[in-house]
Amino acid sequence: MIKDIKQEKFGFKIIKKDSKSKARVGRITTVHGVIETPSFVAVGTQATVKGLSPKDIKEAGVQLLFGNTYHLHLRPGEDVVKKFGGVGKFMGWNGPTITDSGGFQIFSLGQKKIKILQEDEEANLVNIADDGVIFRSHIDGSKHTFTPEVSIEIQKKLGADIILAFDECVPHPSTHEYTKEAMQRTHHWAPRSLKAGQGKQFYPWKQALYGIIQGGIYKDLRQESAKFISALSFDGIAIGGVSVGESKKEMRDAIDWSMPFLPSEKPRHLLGIGEIDDIFDAIERGIDTFDCVIPTRFGRYGIVFVSPQEGNIKNRFRIDINKTIFAKDQSPIAKDCLCYTCQSFTRGYLHHLFRAQELLAYRLASYHNMFFINDLVKKIRKGILNDEFAKFKKQWLSL
Amino acid sequence: MIKDIKQEKFGFKIIKKDSKSKARVGRITTVHGVIETPSFVAVGTQATVKGLSPKDIKEAGVQLLFGNTYHLHLRPGEDVVKKFGGVGKFMGWNGPTITDSGGFQIFSLGQKKIKILQEDEEANLVNIADDGVIFRSHIDGSKHTFTPEVSIEIQKKLGADIILAFDECVPHPSTHEYTKEAMQRTHHWAPRSLKAGQGKQFYPWKQALYGIIQGGIYKDLRQESAKFISALSFDGIAIGGVSVGESKKEMRDAIDWSMPFLPSEKPRHLLGIGEIDDIFDAIERGIDTFDCVIPTRFGRYGIVFVSPQEGNIKNRFRIDINKTIFAKDQSPIAKDCLCYTCQSFTRGYLHHLFRAQELLAYRLASYHNMFFINDLVKKIRKGILNDEFAKFKKQWLSL
Repeated sequence: MIKDIKQEKFGFKIIKKDSKSKARVGRITTVHGVIETPSFVAVGTQATVKGLSPKDIKEAGVQLLFGNTYHLHLRPGEDVVKKFGGVGKFMGWNGPTITDSGGFQIFSLGQKKIKILQEDEEANLVNIADDGVIFRSHIDGSKHTFTPEVSIEIQKKLGADIILAFDECVPHPSTHEYTKEAMQRTHHWAPRSLKAGQGKQFYPWKQALYGIIQGGIYKDLRQESAKFISALSFDGIAIGGVSVGESKKEMRDAIDWSMPFLPSEKPRHLLGIGEIDDIFDAIERGIDTFDCVIPTRFGRYGIVFVSPQEGNIKNRFRIDINKTIFAKDQSPIAKDCLCYTCQSFTRGYLHHLFRAQELLAYRLASYHNMFFINDLVKKIRKGILNDEFAKFKKQWLSL
Repeated sequence: MIKDIKQEKFGFKIIKKDSKSKARVGRITTVHGVIETPSFVAVGTQATVKGLSPKDIKEAGVQLLFGNTYHLHLRPGEDVVKKFGGVGKFMGWNGPTITDSGGFQIFSLGQKKIKILQEDEEANLVNIADDGVIFRSHIDGSKHTFTPEVSIEIQKKLGADIILAFDECVPHPSTHEYTKEAMQRTHHWAPRSLKAGQGKQFYPWKQALYGIIQGGIYKDLRQESAKFISALSFDGIAIGGVSVGESKKEMRDAIDWSMPFLPSEKPRHLLGIGEIDDIFDAIERGIDTFDCVIPTRFGRYGIVFVSPQEGNIKNRFRIDINKTIFAKDQSPIAKDCLCYTCQSFTRGYLHHLFRAQELLAYRLASYHNMFFINDLVKKIRKGILNDEFAKFKKQWLSL
């Protein structure tokens, strides 16, 4: 079956541009299905979206699934995933998939350990050299080396439809000097990732390769990185390092500074973003896809999305179902939501499940959040198509 | 809607008796639906079957759902459940429900604490008096008193289709003397439960009341209890205290000793039993329904049911998916199983989820176990109808 679609192309087409902003509606085509953009990308770190089945995420409107190369390399290992036919098949998801380069996790999980292990240089979890990164597994302490070639080789074995160039993401805060060094490493690694992408294929489908813009919170670096990455022959562009900043303004700046240099015809992914106001801001600035763990992470804590009318001034888009005021509340989480959770269960029941620390709590709340976010992005897409994006944004954000 | 079915009756009809054993096929009718017997009863202790949604348990073939009065009384409280329309409606399950008396949990959860708290008599979790039981909550240490009247009142507020008389379940081992005392208390409480059952109704449907046979591992006590409970005007008979024994023989004995005294026309429930060989043994001895936490408890540990051909001599009916031998196994858990887990995922993927301690692991394994057990009982039902019960039992147990 797969053989018939050998060398099937990856494609991106812009369907409609918003007249008042940089927002756009597009369509990414892959062998495993179409992604109508703008699109929220669900994160399935360890080849599972926490608490949700592939059937759930499909029902919730998810079109593209994000796997983490760092985690999948450590467990179960890319060779095991390859044996099972790639990350999608391994986890029972037959839609499109994307994997990251491993860079973000190496550096973010590394940071924590460096503090603990600073006495013993040999034991440092992360060692950065221009050639690549040596790090220790957060699971068993085993030593691993990632270079652009290694990252791409692993991603090729994982077999996602979209893969990412190897990059270094700096923590916040970082000096201009260090951010620049890291950016230069990322730029040095970019052509190597591209070259590695040309090598042996393990699957009969095109794996689109996206370059990653870094540069932290510095305008000159973001601009330099955007120019550099845009000039290379990547299939798409990702903007990285925006989820580690301290303010939403830094995220908006990073997009605004990069965007003028990005080729219009390539799809644009924003890494690690997904709060409701951020989603409007990112789409307005021309982002096509964006991934975030928020629906499931919030879900596991009992933080569930509601429309702005149902929230409060501090938290316009969410309520904390653990609060006692919900114990006897017979209404659904969100009154207009059509998801299974809202159609079947009350706030009071969800409150009970969280109080009793029942597994079903995490699942039902995560399901609602995933459905809610995808439904919102679908409405935004429709808004852009109908030239009503600005109006729709105002309805949600101006309360 | 509910008003139209006011005072709808509870019913039980025997459809077919096995020619070679006491096994029988029957049908229990309730306002909330029919239960084809023999039937496995899923346990939803805190108004949720751990890890599974009501949609899942319906798909898995569950017909009757078991709630625990002790837990629901402590959290969220019977008055909250009542406000939501009863335990079924509260948890989004529209099929038949059954609740226990609270006795088993009071005594089993109490036992543990008595050891810890023995220095301080006042603080003992359980105090047994002929009038009822004073105990402390395992959640917050608050003091509660259960009498037959209290247990029935709570169960009336919970609103299950079938409720149980208040009983005392002795731990194993217990002396003949203590077991007799406890049985006498249970007998003393039985008419009081019956009388309390005649009182105010909170729901427009009949709540059938089952009496409970106790007597531990002692033949004379089991016989005495079976005679005593059978003589009262209960709607059905439950056999209690068999899951606390040490051997499967004690369970079989308890049923065998009681059965000759049970009225044939009343439904018979066996409390807390559900391993695969036990199911065959119980049905063969004339049991109609039986509840057990095994499918979900085993599921959370990664112990999953397989047909005897797929197991090994020690564990004919299950495998431990955590074992390394399953890491690269591309077959489903059980090769002829039609459940969502087996139709969608491999043993290797399940193994990965358990290793990674992902929430989906517990859910998919529990779902499979729940489906598998219900499917097996359905086949047993069919076997009895076709006069092939003995043959079917041999296929499963003689390997």
